[in-house]
Amino acid sequence: MIEIRAFAEADWAAVWHFMEPVFRAGETYAFSPDITAEEAYQIWVEAPAATFVAVAENRQIVGTYYLKPNQPGLGSHVCNCGYIVAEQARGRGIASEMCEHSQREALARGFRAMQFNLVVSTNEGAVRLWKRHDFAVIGTLPEAFRHPRCGFVDALVMYKQLEM
Amino acid sequence: MIEIRAFAEADWAAVWHFMEPVFRAGETYAFSPDITAEEAYQIWVEAPAATFVAVAENRQIVGTYYLKPNQPGLGSHVCNCGYIVAEQARGRGIASEMCEHSQREALARGFRAMQFNLVVSTNEGAVRLWKRHDFAVIGTLPEAFRHPRCGFVDALVMYKQLEM
Repeated sequence: MIEIRAFAEADWAAVWHFMEPVFRAGETYAFSPDITAEEAYQIWVEAPAATFVAVAENRQIVGTYYLKPNQPGLGSHVCNCGYIVAEQARGRGIASEMCEHSQREALARGFRAMQFNLVVSTNEGAVRLWKRHDFAVIGTLPEAFRHPRCGFVDALVMYKQLEM
Repeated sequence: MIEIRAFAEADWAAVWHFMEPVFRAGETYAFSPDITAEEAYQIWVEAPAATFVAVAENRQIVGTYYLKPNQPGLGSHVCNCGYIVAEQARGRGIASEMCEHSQREALARGFRAMQFNLVVSTNEGAVRLWKRHDFAVIGTLPEAFRHPRCGFVDALVMYKQLEM
């Protein structure tokens, strides 16, 4: 059983601990692999409208996501989220639970759709997961992501209109 | 004959003069129609990697565009631009000239592709122009733009891989 709740300041050390290797690997997010903890905090906690954590039964924080408008003003009814699950907690459906939670949260905040701007095509698990949650592949951006091992790879724009 | 050159501080009053009604109308850019001059300056001049102006023969500034990375780090080889032509100077090919200039400038700065994230579908002139400059419609974001007169309308993601 996973509990998803609002991020609290005291969570940051645990979040950064499993977030750092994901950003350092540079295979799923565009952020520089050299990103600092301060930059990551700004991006993940300060800039978004809200940040959440997924907490396991043993009280360990095993996931996090942020929610924010994807565009200003006249595009601000479409939100954007980013999700990270701790390496050792993968394969337990935590990303799925966060995805569903984020859609409910987005609707409660008045968003009408959710957009992922740069889903790395080699990140097949993520692509499969978002498709299973009824996100449509709007299109493919040729070579839009510089993968540290695979070179320039395609990225997908994915989108879902949210329903009450 | 249009000259396109780097933006200088002294240009701002003239740029804001023709930019303001475009943002106030809210038909082509997502920025809030209530945007202030200070916010616009931050978005158009401070945040981008570079800003340019198009100057007519009579020395009037009749257009402007910005150039910036569309994503951080591992997506920063794809750039994004925004263009505005002064109302009274439209239909003279200035947007086309700025589009070509921006592609040369992007290549010179090491970008490999250019992406437009939110081309409002009702802005048919822009869609036609980018297509003529070999931008591909990557996909359509359903109802991603809240048009002040038309309500929620689709927006296009457009993309071009730049060639030396």
